[in-house]
Order: sequence, then structure tokens, then C-alpha cells
Amino acid sequence: MANYPFELLKLVSYLRKLPGVGAKTAERFAFQLLEWDSQLLVQFGNLLSNIKNKIHFCETCGCLREEECLFCSSQRNSTQICVISSAKDVYSIEETKAFQGFYHVTHGLLSPLEGKTAEHLHLEKLKKRIQDHEIKEAILALDSTIEGDTTALYLKQELSKLGLSVTRLALGLPMGSTIHFVDGGTLARAFIGRQRF
Amino acid sequence: MANYPFELLKLVSYLRKLPGVGAKTAERFAFQLLEWDSQLLVQFGNLLSNIKNKIHFCETCGCLREEECLFCSSQRNSTQICVISSAKDVYSIEETKAFQGFYHVTHGLLSPLEGKTAEHLHLEKLKKRIQDHEIKEAILALDSTIEGDTTALYLKQELSKLGLSVTRLALGLPMGSTIHFVDGGTLARAFIGRQRF
Repeated sequence: MANYPFELLKLVSYLRKLPGVGAKTAERFAFQLLEWDSQLLVQFGNLLSNIKNKIHFCETCGCLREEECLFCSSQRNSTQICVISSAKDVYSIEETKAFQGFYHVTHGLLSPLEGKTAEHLHLEKLKKRIQDHEIKEAILALDSTIEGDTTALYLKQELSKLGLSVTRLALGLPMGSTIHFVDGGTLARAFIGRQRF
Repeated sequence: MANYPFELLKLVSYLRKLPGVGAKTAERFAFQLLEWDSQLLVQFGNLLSNIKNKIHFCETCGCLREEECLFCSSQRNSTQICVISSAKDVYSIEETKAFQGFYHVTHGLLSPLEGKTAEHLHLEKLKKRIQDHEIKEAILALDSTIEGDTTALYLKQELSKLGLSVTRLALGLPMGSTIHFVDGGTLARAFIGRQRF
């Protein structure tokens, strides 16, 4: 790396930790930050330093919360629980308004290469909630990737023992897609999952 | 934007100010930051808050400096000055070891659309340095863009009055390029700037 001032190098090293940010991008960010107003930098810096005191992961469901968790409230449908791998996903699902039940965030997917094993999925907490609330259906809303598929299979095995129905989001054509441009795997899954019309 | 916690929205709004970062990327950064260790966030936050107290722009040349400016030292060749538009460029030029003179950072290029006029180029400071140090050559190392060309033309006009030689970086084929893939403009400039071999 170039002969930058030491504090600038430190700043670049932090910025490089952001996802998808390499050396060149981090340098560009750093030089731009130096052109920000001092006051803005202080505000941004303070926000970062304190963000973990302001935003927490809900102890029950694992979603983000400031004060009360919005997704554990008693007004929600307590017969369904949706299992997601990241607290971010809850916002995409909430926007669809297609689901009003509880959530459970696994904070990751099974991935032996990254050292993510079954212990990381907070499964005991999930099982306890299912029993306490007499939940009838667990909906697995996991990524359609190798890790997502593996985790879904494992969760199905584990949760089926509790005698509730375990479902997974449908795999098929994305809205607005053309048959010609959809990949073979997706098309095959859309055939398998075809529905009476 | 989704119904994120308020502090998260604030964090996203700061991250969006980084160059080339849109809403989706800023959200991805923000969620990743929430997974950082608290201590790391505090260190990063403090660095940002204090960076302007640690790194300054040199009052003489406009380069970045921590204590003494490395680029204004008396050991440098005081007969040449290199005009660059950003403090970042100095590091690329220093790495080539092709230049040992002084620098002058204009902190921007002429761009009427962005409100950057001749007053923003710190020209008086540059002229004074040229006269004080009896500089013989001003090398314009500006981008090869419309703004860079305009600024170079303007600086040439202004600096020629001081009776020194004004040069500009050569335009031509980048190293390792093939004639076939070089654009017409570059090729034409390479013809104009051809040199005895």
C-alpha cells in the first residue's frame, strides 16, 4: 500500500472489513471521509461507537429491536413461526404482508467450512417457543443455496419430531421472468412444485 | 425504505454518503457493522470522530500531513512543481519515483456545473510559491477528462505569465496495450505526441 499517513491506513483497514470492499474502494472511501465536515464525522463516529447500545437483538426471536421487539408482540398470529437466517430478512418478509406470525432468526446457516454447526442455530430456544405457544406450522424462509438447503433439511428433521407441520417457501419462476431466460434448476423446481390452476 | 430501527436508518444515511454507495449497499454495510464486535465499533467510531484532528491538509502544498509535511521538505528539487487535483494523486506519483519536486494540490478541477470556479484552485498560493522558490517548470498532472483539460488550459494561461515552462503529462498508449484495443482519441494523441526513437 502507498505511503499514506498512519491514521489514514488505520481508517482504510477498518473500511476494508465492510462486505465487498477491497483495498482500492476502502482508499476511495477514506479520502472521501477526509473531505467530510468535521461535525458530520463526529456524528457518524459517535453513532458507530454507540450503535450496539441502541440496537439489540431480541432475546426471544433474534430480530433487531430498539425498545420493545415489534415482532414478538401478542397481537401476532401465534400459530405460525417463520425461520430466517438473518435479522435483515424480516423486513423483506414484513413488506410483503404475507405473514403475520412469529419469527426465529438462526443468525447464520449450517456451513462446516465456516465453522457454523447445528449449535449456532439457537435450536433449543426455537423448540421451546414452539412448545410454549403451541405453534402449528414452522415456515422455513431460508436462502435457496447449498447452505440454505442443508439447514432446511436439518431443521425439518429436528422440528418434525415436535409434531408440527414444517413448510418451506416455494421454489419457482420469479415474477416477470420468461421461461427462456430462467435457469434449468429453477425451471425443474417449478415443474415439481406446479400447482392446480 | 423498510421499517428499520431509527438508529439503523441513521447509520444507513451516513453510509450512503460514501462514493458509489447506494441504498442497498449501505443497508448491507449497516447490517454487517451490527455484527462487528462492540470494541471494534468503538475504535472505528473514535477514529472517525478524531481523524480531522490527526490528519491535516498542508497549508503550503495541500497534501495530507500528520506532523511535518513530507512533500514540502527542503531536500526536494525546488525547481519543479507538480500540480495535481487531489491529495490522493501524490501517492501514485511518488510511487513512480519519476518526480522529486514540490506539489500543489488544487483540491478539485474547474467544473462550472459543480460550482468549481477558478477561485477554488488556490492559484495565488501557487503563484507565490513559484516566485518565492524560483521554480522553472510547472508540470500539470491532471486527469485526462473534460474538467482536467479545461483546468490545464486555464492554468497554462495563468502560469505562462510568470515566465516559467508549463508542461503536461504525456497522453498516449498505456503500457502493455495493443493498438487494436486502444480508443481512437488516445491513438490520435499518441500520434501527435510521438517521440524520436
